[in-house]
Amino acid sequence: MTLKIAHFLNENRPSTPCLVIDLDVVTARYRRLQDSLPGVVISYAVKANPARPVLEILNAGGSHFDAASIYEIEDLLALGVTPDRIVYGNTIKKEGDIAAAHAHGVRLFAFDSEAEVEKLARSAPGAGVYCRIITTCEGADWPLSRKFGCELDMAHNLLLMARDLGLDAQGLSFHVGSQQTNPRQWGHAIKRAAQVFHSLADQGLELKMLNLGGGFPVRYRKEVPEIEEVAAAIMEAMRREFGDTLPRMFIEPGRIITADAGIIQTEVVLISTKNYDNGVRWVYLDVGKFGGLAETMDEAIQYPLATHYNGAASGPVVIAGPTCDGADILYENAGYSLPLDLKVGDKIQIGGAGAYTTTYASICFNGFPPLQAHYI
Amino acid sequence: MTLKIAHFLNENRPSTPCLVIDLDVVTARYRRLQDSLPGVVISYAVKANPARPVLEILNAGGSHFDAASIYEIEDLLALGVTPDRIVYGNTIKKEGDIAAAHAHGVRLFAFDSEAEVEKLARSAPGAGVYCRIITTCEGADWPLSRKFGCELDMAHNLLLMARDLGLDAQGLSFHVGSQQTNPRQWGHAIKRAAQVFHSLADQGLELKMLNLGGGFPVRYRKEVPEIEEVAAAIMEAMRREFGDTLPRMFIEPGRIITADAGIIQTEVVLISTKNYDNGVRWVYLDVGKFGGLAETMDEAIQYPLATHYNGAASGPVVIAGPTCDGADILYENAGYSLPLDLKVGDKIQIGGAGAYTTTYASICFNGFPPLQAHYI
Repeated sequence: MTLKIAHFLNENRPSTPCLVIDLDVVTARYRRLQDSLPGVVISYAVKANPARPVLEILNAGGSHFDAASIYEIEDLLALGVTPDRIVYGNTIKKEGDIAAAHAHGVRLFAFDSEAEVEKLARSAPGAGVYCRIITTCEGADWPLSRKFGCELDMAHNLLLMARDLGLDAQGLSFHVGSQQTNPRQWGHAIKRAAQVFHSLADQGLELKMLNLGGGFPVRYRKEVPEIEEVAAAIMEAMRREFGDTLPRMFIEPGRIITADAGIIQTEVVLISTKNYDNGVRWVYLDVGKFGGLAETMDEAIQYPLATHYNGAASGPVVIAGPTCDGADILYENAGYSLPLDLKVGDKIQIGGAGAYTTTYASICFNGFPPLQAHYI
Repeated sequence: MTLKIAHFLNENRPSTPCLVIDLDVVTARYRRLQDSLPGVVISYAVKANPARPVLEILNAGGSHFDAASIYEIEDLLALGVTPDRIVYGNTIKKEGDIAAAHAHGVRLFAFDSEAEVEKLARSAPGAGVYCRIITTCEGADWPLSRKFGCELDMAHNLLLMARDLGLDAQGLSFHVGSQQTNPRQWGHAIKRAAQVFHSLADQGLELKMLNLGGGFPVRYRKEVPEIEEVAAAIMEAMRREFGDTLPRMFIEPGRIITADAGIIQTEVVLISTKNYDNGVRWVYLDVGKFGGLAETMDEAIQYPLATHYNGAASGPVVIAGPTCDGADILYENAGYSLPLDLKVGDKIQIGGAGAYTTTYASICFNGFPPLQAHYI
């Protein structure tokens, strides 16, 4: 928690649960990413946190933006982002949305299937396009599964098809999985991408861009590699595969720009045990899986928790949210401990909560309103 | 899909995705439940679908309401529901919310822990209370885990404590798990509840009510027991355990009243394969896990899907939602098939979608707006 956030909580005592974002951290994370990967186009993954104050900072800093939907694109345009800095990065798009984005001036689109190339050729004629390839997500805490991307031979053929249909077949993208903790995974994916660059060059199609996706890890409960280490691994792999003539590089960071900037202030609603035979305490918070902490699904993202009981004796707990849903348990197996003196009404700060929280919140499950947020 | 819904879709061609609820089905399901369990208090689980038109029908029919939060209670009161028909059924409540509910005239509260009894004694003095006991959820498609309820000996002690603190210790509740397909599970739970009735009678505390919870199953892809069969199993177990002097019985149905009333109209956004080696089609819809279909988590609730290709040849598919999130896959292992002729832009009707959909939808994940709903 930054001093600015601590001061805000102390002065304002906002009703809980709420997210508080220190915008200075957003600025600092963006600059550090620029410094780590000079010359690489930063295309902020809007979905991580689409709040206007966040987008304004990044827009002022010259960031590009990766949009997942026509709604995000229209929000960006309304904010004054120029369409040449917007990528329509979702490989699953309605054709009407492609046409609307194209009419707005967006000129770079992702695809990973034949049907999508056909839609793009019809509804975004001449636009720049890139093909997403499948990579393994080993080492990622929030893997992106096989939902996106296609195999290399298919990518090869689809890019040729895109060219033949009048599109500007620019390159490739991949995503190593969100919260990827193994820097070498980027290298594996870069090697695979380079194969397609080479096979297409043999066919007379010179690709010119490579989108390395996101996945840059954030420190939650566990230590993770610093961004500089990941960046070094990326650049080493790029030079190994592409020599001195690097393609134009994009990255799509989301989590690493906003996660650290925010904490969720929550209150302990209830502490109980279920029986007299074991002492496992259940701690129920006023925020849960449906109030913004969806990434606790399968206990994937393990947020650090802080209380005012610094250094006090603690014991194991199960942590759950406030709804009447049995799935609304945050951590049962991840080995969380909380102070033995913790009591109903105490505040807990959930760290690293600036990404993938506000917009994940359900609209009003169990009647609870969505997560309130303060941008300071 | 009812004729009324088919007619509405045909006449209005609403933009997708959207939920369409036939309110006549809500009325019919409520009446059928009344007929199946005469004399039992129906306390509608508002969280299943809190839409005003649904609540109005049930209010007019004399239903009671099970509320999960102070927000739901205030919505009910605003609708004209009298507080004597509202149960604050969440065992996890902020003390301020208990006091607010009590001030509104609510006089029946659930608990399952010592801390909650203390809160109730302080902030809802003299109110009626009941204790939720743990039951196994075997046979439930959406189990409620160990999050709620306490063991029998603890329930015994907590009810005595409630009485001693001036509360009106009325009885017990349990929940056999949502979408419970084994009617005998109610019997097991009733038997456990009866043990506490007897042990407390020995201490001079005569309980007078038993809340049998919800969990009444709905037909999704698989056949389930009819409500009459479940009701018969319940009444048989009640007579076996309690003889001729039955306690006042409550049920908390949610799903069984609204699920069948609704379909989600969705559109196929993309059909693709990932490689040339296997033919598994990925079908991407414009609604997914974050747009209202949260109960597809772990493929738990398996909705029936309908297209206009009646009886046509079909083949295996993976079905996913439209967001850039790898977790937004609906069905990968549940063995879904869709017509081989299915194409981008086709409509699919997702059946049984009237419960646990609208309010589960995320507020705007990936920029997509929450699920729109039409009540007809």
